[in-house]
Amino acid sequence: MDHDYAVIMAGGGGTRLWPLSRQDRPKQSLKLLGDRTMFQLSVERLAPLFSPEQILVVTSAAYALDLRQQCPSLPEANFVLEPAPKGTAPALALSALAVRRRDPEGRMACLTADHFIGDEARFRDVLAAAAHVAGQGFLVTLGIKPTYPSTGYGYIQRGAALQTIGGWEVFRAARFKEKPKLPEAEAFVADGLHSWNSGMFIWRVDRILAEFARQMPGFYRRLLEIEAAPEALAQVWENAPTTTIDYGIMEGADEVAVIPADGLHWSDIGSWDSLLEVLAPDEAGNVVVSGEHLGLGTRGSLIHSSHGARRLIATIGVSNLVIVDTEDVLLVCPRERSQEVRAVVEALKKRADGQNYL
Amino acid sequence: MDHDYAVIMAGGGGTRLWPLSRQDRPKQSLKLLGDRTMFQLSVERLAPLFSPEQILVVTSAAYALDLRQQCPSLPEANFVLEPAPKGTAPALALSALAVRRRDPEGRMACLTADHFIGDEARFRDVLAAAAHVAGQGFLVTLGIKPTYPSTGYGYIQRGAALQTIGGWEVFRAARFKEKPKLPEAEAFVADGLHSWNSGMFIWRVDRILAEFARQMPGFYRRLLEIEAAPEALAQVWENAPTTTIDYGIMEGADEVAVIPADGLHWSDIGSWDSLLEVLAPDEAGNVVVSGEHLGLGTRGSLIHSSHGARRLIATIGVSNLVIVDTEDVLLVCPRERSQEVRAVVEALKKRADGQNYL
Repeated sequence: MDHDYAVIMAGGGGTRLWPLSRQDRPKQSLKLLGDRTMFQLSVERLAPLFSPEQILVVTSAAYALDLRQQCPSLPEANFVLEPAPKGTAPALALSALAVRRRDPEGRMACLTADHFIGDEARFRDVLAAAAHVAGQGFLVTLGIKPTYPSTGYGYIQRGAALQTIGGWEVFRAARFKEKPKLPEAEAFVADGLHSWNSGMFIWRVDRILAEFARQMPGFYRRLLEIEAAPEALAQVWENAPTTTIDYGIMEGADEVAVIPADGLHWSDIGSWDSLLEVLAPDEAGNVVVSGEHLGLGTRGSLIHSSHGARRLIATIGVSNLVIVDTEDVLLVCPRERSQEVRAVVEALKKRADGQNYL
Repeated sequence: MDHDYAVIMAGGGGTRLWPLSRQDRPKQSLKLLGDRTMFQLSVERLAPLFSPEQILVVTSAAYALDLRQQCPSLPEANFVLEPAPKGTAPALALSALAVRRRDPEGRMACLTADHFIGDEARFRDVLAAAAHVAGQGFLVTLGIKPTYPSTGYGYIQRGAALQTIGGWEVFRAARFKEKPKLPEAEAFVADGLHSWNSGMFIWRVDRILAEFARQMPGFYRRLLEIEAAPEALAQVWENAPTTTIDYGIMEGADEVAVIPADGLHWSDIGSWDSLLEVLAPDEAGNVVVSGEHLGLGTRGSLIHSSHGARRLIATIGVSNLVIVDTEDVLLVCPRERSQEVRAVVEALKKRADGQNYL
């Protein structure tokens, strides 16, 4: 599409998928689903819409080399480097400037590097619809139909219907709500007016930069200075506020639209058990990723192997268990407790030799 | 002790402790309990009673080299090689001849190579008492107090009390009963007259060889011929009956005594869950062997690691689970289903690549 760019946000860290994710191996670099990393999958699903020159990646210097090696077709100049993690707002401001240099009339789709999207054709279709709406001047967010009252996602309340394009309904976004408490989340799911905030946005660069100028004027003014003197970026960054695009810009922005992007079969893969929801289980309800498995009486379990060597995982009579087998760490836990991986990570931080496994 | 020899029976195979036990790595060569193999532990616990010259090992040629390397202090000539597995009766006949060559007045304690004995001092004490009784001409068996109605062990019914020596009561053995059905096993436990058959025996070589001459005369006659012509062993062996010492000799023998060797904290370690019974669990009921473990909300579980590399096993919220982590196979199963390891082995035999893991 002319004037269209994708910006893949690939700067995140995170430990929710330990032991596969590590300090130097963030979620976007993991082969969670098989033989491709999440970043590779994120880039590859864009191929029908964007040429490599149209795909930018915003990340930290620490991750950039690895990401470039994962997708060597992307031009090196398309890697936008944040000097330090400051949240999505500064990262996307930097990215918007990079797009504007390429095309002052550019539109940018801000996409995630580590999410699962089951129906990729439908995803590209909603991106094209969203680009059309963004062309009208809207800041477009993609919403996800909530399937349960999650307290881990943000919510977007729909306002007035704006239009229907290509079968996609477009609404004015009435309100953003960060991770709610359970009663509020339950109300959001019940009222049918709320979508999960997917963290994916589509807008014209002139529109988003105008919002930065209005809502984060100090940061934006400093940022413009580096257009003339790029070597000043580190210092600008040091003084930049740390904030998300949702909180820093979207909540106070004009002309915000939401497209409920239902049917994508989307997940942020926030914990190991979510792989059991998004990947196709076998007839016993098991999901085996990259491993050789022999199960007797085994049901509803995730077997995830990234142990390099030839290796068999045998299970007898286990149900709803998560087994993650890496070179140097083995994790075993019931699927409903896979969020507690964080507690293991915290415990390791306190152990003398724990650093070896983080 | 003068005239006393130990014969360690180390020829067995078996797959009940797969994936640690393999076709070429039988149970006696496993480090089930830590950094020593079961065979090493079996030899070392005899040190206060027997010099290395007094310890013989009967095994197959396939295992002998490995066993010799495990215990280099044992003289090479003390390894008695069965040409093929034929059960304990032929193996012990061959061993008895080897002892008789060393000492026609010798006594031999026939001991196992792969059992757990928690109270080693008590074990040596009952061996010394049994040797005394054997010196009177009895074929002595060590019994074990049954703790549940096992259908996997043989039972020995006690007859008349014979004597008490060193605090150990000695009874005439009234009857041997191979692995009974459950109702019979329950009756044996309830009547208080039965011991489990530990498979350990103590006798004078002249007495046991007289029983062979009487009860297995054809085999015994052929066996005597090889005293003059050892190169004939393979052929004698080919025609030897396959039978156990219990069935072939003890059930029909004269002057059989049983000493209830209670308090040894004995186990044949017939399946993984038995390690949870014999090893001292930590305050959460877990047993960790040779591994680095971090458990959150983990109870009653066995973590057995023989994975060579530096490696952490993390568990969250699991109870009564068996985790056996080897170089090339990981086994996970509830402790009450650890006997079903055999079914996994059978399933592997049918798989194209299963042989790699057997």
